[in-house]
Amino acid sequence: MTAGAAPDVVIAGGGLIGLSVAWRSAQRGLSVAVVDDAPGDGASRAAAGMLAPVTEAGYREEALLRLGLASVQRWPAFAEEVERAGGLPVGLRTAGTLVVGFDDDDMRELDALHAFQQELGLDAERLTPRATRRREPSLTPRVRGGLLVTGDHSVDGRALHAALLAAARDAGVRLVRDRVAAVRVDGGRAAGLELAGGRALEAGAVVLALGAHSAGLPGVPPLPVRPVKGQILRLAGAGGLLEGTVRALVRGRHVYLVPYAGDRLVVGATVEDRGFDPTVTAGGVHDLLHDAIDVVPGVSELELAETLARWRPGTPDNAPLLGASSLPGLVLATGHHRNGVLLTPVTAEVVADLLATGTLPELAAPFTADRFAPAPPRR
Amino acid sequence: MTAGAAPDVVIAGGGLIGLSVAWRSAQRGLSVAVVDDAPGDGASRAAAGMLAPVTEAGYREEALLRLGLASVQRWPAFAEEVERAGGLPVGLRTAGTLVVGFDDDDMRELDALHAFQQELGLDAERLTPRATRRREPSLTPRVRGGLLVTGDHSVDGRALHAALLAAARDAGVRLVRDRVAAVRVDGGRAAGLELAGGRALEAGAVVLALGAHSAGLPGVPPLPVRPVKGQILRLAGAGGLLEGTVRALVRGRHVYLVPYAGDRLVVGATVEDRGFDPTVTAGGVHDLLHDAIDVVPGVSELELAETLARWRPGTPDNAPLLGASSLPGLVLATGHHRNGVLLTPVTAEVVADLLATGTLPELAAPFTADRFAPAPPRR
Repeated sequence: MTAGAAPDVVIAGGGLIGLSVAWRSAQRGLSVAVVDDAPGDGASRAAAGMLAPVTEAGYREEALLRLGLASVQRWPAFAEEVERAGGLPVGLRTAGTLVVGFDDDDMRELDALHAFQQELGLDAERLTPRATRRREPSLTPRVRGGLLVTGDHSVDGRALHAALLAAARDAGVRLVRDRVAAVRVDGGRAAGLELAGGRALEAGAVVLALGAHSAGLPGVPPLPVRPVKGQILRLAGAGGLLEGTVRALVRGRHVYLVPYAGDRLVVGATVEDRGFDPTVTAGGVHDLLHDAIDVVPGVSELELAETLARWRPGTPDNAPLLGASSLPGLVLATGHHRNGVLLTPVTAEVVADLLATGTLPELAAPFTADRFAPAPPRR
Repeated sequence: MTAGAAPDVVIAGGGLIGLSVAWRSAQRGLSVAVVDDAPGDGASRAAAGMLAPVTEAGYREEALLRLGLASVQRWPAFAEEVERAGGLPVGLRTAGTLVVGFDDDDMRELDALHAFQQELGLDAERLTPRATRRREPSLTPRVRGGLLVTGDHSVDGRALHAALLAAARDAGVRLVRDRVAAVRVDGGRAAGLELAGGRALEAGAVVLALGAHSAGLPGVPPLPVRPVKGQILRLAGAGGLLEGTVRALVRGRHVYLVPYAGDRLVVGATVEDRGFDPTVTAGGVHDLLHDAIDVVPGVSELELAETLARWRPGTPDNAPLLGASSLPGLVLATGHHRNGVLLTPVTAEVVADLLATGTLPELAAPFTADRFAPAPPRR
């Protein structure tokens, strides 16, 4: 049974990636349906919303860094456009990010990061302990120094999702609230989606934007995507506590504190290889609270308003899977790991381009799935 | 306006104390109404349910200890009777309590507690580190020794409340779901309650069982009851982790872990003088998780299922206020501080006795409010 007229594109997954691809594709004149039984309840719900290509990317991940920088540059205009189209705020904060350190190892890491940023011509300023605390007076006096990255911003992931949903609907995107059961394959080509209720949705092209659930879906060729569990906390009562995002290394664990509109603060995040374990654990919450209080003692007095766990879509090189797959008609927009919010504008743009023109923009070329194809046998 | 026929007794507060007094009073042939807008949502909801007179009472609190011992002796029969009358389980666990220590100070405290118990003829056994871990194999290997108190039990406070509610109703107690606004005073005598909606409920006698909210109610004479905030955690997945209750001192903070039916574990509790602050704080949750994980490392893997904060009714000597007040017709059943669940059976008995016969049993004599009367002036 087929429900309604077949759209040009059906998108499996209504998180930030799926919705933004849908919106951009509809703007290109394509008819689009999005299928999700709980849109925005995956990794999008837990995202801290850091737009931090420099402080997030590793030194060996320069292609990913370029993609991140391309995306962060798009962010201000993207935010404005989503807000206008959706009629809702997305909570973009441009107060920058302060990276802080507490011991010699941390300070060496800060210096290396600073040198790297200067090489790239990015705006970053190395701060003395005194200047670090002048920027964020609530930091522990034990702070040894900081690096202020004025170009690393943040956005409210949940507000963004709501605005994207409104924008996509306004652009004519159809939202089907059902669980994706399989990609329908017809004559060796992706021809639509099969839904949990037994219905099918035919389409000219299928976009896979199921995040951590992208691998293992019937009909989808093998993909190197695995769930990487993250636990995150939301605190309340934090009005005025922090000027901008604070990132720190605490005894080898990274912690970040991201202030939000009103009096909210997000503290994240654990990185755990535990499959699809949905448990908010005593140990995970303990570690986040411990590290956050260590860095900003005043966190102790805040209200613990929410705890949650979700799964990032991890890949072997921490970079996303964008563009064609080995199954004709199936386009990938997944594997964004820790960078889903950051990479939303650029992902939407390149995937919509591919859908509208048949060609993936050069910027996304390093991120096609065939980079993981087995190497030819050597003699 | 008066609602219905005036009962013999109206009880302000439908927590464990109010309901058990209501039930026992109805059994004595009195007609009883209980007023509460959210029965069981006060301290009863957060109670860990330890029945631990010996490990809880301080050395200077011997009258309280005697009352606690009298109550703990009543517990098995009380539990059985409530279960039979209410038709619901109360989750009494008789596996005993293990008190553990980690340093020299702790071990001295354990030895002093043991000596005190022997003086009182109570059953308690001092365990070597090896025997301590044999009793509770999930304890940290750093444990220096333990004290097994086989007579200190626990009960599921929420299950007990549900069973008491059913038992009270079955005994003819009328539950009025409204907020108590004032004690109605008529001719210098408590004559009933005024409810938030504007109604009044006349009665022959009024029992004040509002826990931390007992002081400051219009019509009530000044009482030395103050809110003592406690934060508590409920964890899931703890099936088989602990044999019985574990109590420990961790760097000067007391922590207890109380296993429940199914796979639940309660970890408590902070003791904070902050008035009626309802906030579950980052610092409170952190400290509880930290100490619990320190004592039983496997707690780290458990699910953090619930966090909550409530207020114990504290008094200057940590003992309850039982019996007559300075306002004729107003009977006190409040101020139970950390011992509300333990003291439920004995409180219900002595207060129902007073209501039915006009005489407070000797056992409760040290706990009347006039012990806080100002001392006569000295020359």
